[in-house]
Amino acid sequence: MTDRGPGFEEALRAAIDGKTKPPGSLGRIEELSAQIARVQGSLSPRMETCRHFVFAADHGIALDGVSAYPQAVTRQMVANFAAGGAASNVFARANGVDLTVVDAGVAGGPTDVPGVLDARMGEGTASALAGPAMTVDLAEAALDRGRGFGRDAGTDAVSLGEMGIGNTSSAALLAAKLTGTPVARFAGRGTGLDDAGLAAKTALLGRAAERTAPRLGGVAALAEVGGFEIAMMTGAMLGAADAGRMVIVDGFIATAAAAAAVDIAPQAREAMVFAHLSAEAGHRALCDALGAEPLLQLDMRLGEGTGALLAWPLLRAAAAMLREMASFESAGVSGPA
Amino acid sequence: MTDRGPGFEEALRAAIDGKTKPPGSLGRIEELSAQIARVQGSLSPRMETCRHFVFAADHGIALDGVSAYPQAVTRQMVANFAAGGAASNVFARANGVDLTVVDAGVAGGPTDVPGVLDARMGEGTASALAGPAMTVDLAEAALDRGRGFGRDAGTDAVSLGEMGIGNTSSAALLAAKLTGTPVARFAGRGTGLDDAGLAAKTALLGRAAERTAPRLGGVAALAEVGGFEIAMMTGAMLGAADAGRMVIVDGFIATAAAAAAVDIAPQAREAMVFAHLSAEAGHRALCDALGAEPLLQLDMRLGEGTGALLAWPLLRAAAAMLREMASFESAGVSGPA
Repeated sequence: MTDRGPGFEEALRAAIDGKTKPPGSLGRIEELSAQIARVQGSLSPRMETCRHFVFAADHGIALDGVSAYPQAVTRQMVANFAAGGAASNVFARANGVDLTVVDAGVAGGPTDVPGVLDARMGEGTASALAGPAMTVDLAEAALDRGRGFGRDAGTDAVSLGEMGIGNTSSAALLAAKLTGTPVARFAGRGTGLDDAGLAAKTALLGRAAERTAPRLGGVAALAEVGGFEIAMMTGAMLGAADAGRMVIVDGFIATAAAAAAVDIAPQAREAMVFAHLSAEAGHRALCDALGAEPLLQLDMRLGEGTGALLAWPLLRAAAAMLREMASFESAGVSGPA
Repeated sequence: MTDRGPGFEEALRAAIDGKTKPPGSLGRIEELSAQIARVQGSLSPRMETCRHFVFAADHGIALDGVSAYPQAVTRQMVANFAAGGAASNVFARANGVDLTVVDAGVAGGPTDVPGVLDARMGEGTASALAGPAMTVDLAEAALDRGRGFGRDAGTDAVSLGEMGIGNTSSAALLAAKLTGTPVARFAGRGTGLDDAGLAAKTALLGRAAERTAPRLGGVAALAEVGGFEIAMMTGAMLGAADAGRMVIVDGFIATAAAAAAVDIAPQAREAMVFAHLSAEAGHRALCDALGAEPLLQLDMRLGEGTGALLAWPLLRAAAAMLREMASFESAGVSGPA
């Protein structure tokens, strides 16, 4: 993935500390610039283009009553993305990012909306309560399709989001199976469950979790409890990381996909930037499991990749810092007395 | 400043909650969009242009040994800003923001650097340890000059930063005098003091603070312990807020200027967005005093308005959310079941 030779880390440290600022004074932007430099194998990294994907699909478990919204909303929102009216469209435009909407398996037949990419794996998943959400073959196919999107994105960074009523349930189960910890730790209010709704969801997720072993590998976990959009997003992360693109991971659901990706290919972790700490309850625990400290904390819990899109300008600024900023030497500025 | 009639708040709430997202799910971006709407008196606010000012000046107290860097660095950095090589230049370019460098009183005579705006109030301030840093007349003149910059910026938002060796000392004293609390609460490592340096700085600031009453008004505080760049930044905040521009407040030093501005004209507070929680020790305490919760927390402590520049895309996105995002009604999306 990179051309880092011996001495790269020392040269990188010297380049960052030589910039006209007190050492360390740009904090996480310095860390981010170093991460981008490592992925690109360059002390003069470029971070100018980003493509955003929204993967949409439906979830059998949604029909078991785990969401405040009806399943039809997934399909309606796909039309909204195609028309440019959703939050992720607005944030993408505001930040100069191209957005691609992918139907990974929305219930109710092909969406037939111009501008929506057809990558349907089925009419939504089966409910993970009764059996596997999808076959292992379908999980592999969704991963492969996703890998292609990530690999061929053509941009310095790829930012990822999802839409699927019920998918915080799928993400909570994935998080539980990938970390081998109880699912209750990852159950949250999703789009807005009240206390009773949350209790019912938590109980339901507990039953679904009991169906399989406590710890599953990435592909098996995606097949058992994943969603089509989550599996495809996982693949897109793997394909993008393989191609040397930065991977901007949104909130809770995208982080579950990232956990699956890291389980499948640990080296993908290096390309991942965790964008936003979600207000969804389980996100902090999952980030901790991945050693991830999200850049932003804005109390958002929308999904669609909205957090990732808001973090994109920070990547752009971090790379520009390393590439464009003057050094003490070049600018003739004195160091500490 | 605004044309908000009766019913504006209800209409604003309805507009935000009617967008295609679960209510509240965009968290602080929703709050920010509401703040911008109030300042502009519009449910369809515009936030497309931003101008960044870097005010530079020197501080007599720097010669008493409160900084890790020599005073000459202020002047060297002004040349670096003019050449486009500083962190704030890089972040401004990355985010499409124009940058204006203002010499508010750098020691060593006029900078004579093309592209630097001459608004010199003197050869740096006098040391606040021995007497007032500047006369009240000079403080008023710096405020007036700053008001003009803010008023005439010609942009939807104004973002503000500073450069001045020794100015965390001036900011700490300002924070103490404006809040009427001990200066030790606001003393920090600045550009990088070690433990002994911090102890010496804290002792020195304690002596400077004893020279005047524990609580001073905005103009008096600026005259007694302020810097020319801080006073001019305070004025720019007041002028920008008066003209209906959003005011993006950077870290510790800019927040000290904001505290002075709010003391002088409390209504300016509504236009202020606090960008970044500085790693400088006193910033949290000063934010608490202003009821401010900065948007970003990236462990930065550089100044120059770097935090403000990184927050600017969030304002742009927040206004676009309110102006461009579809409603449940317009997009034909179902609400909660």
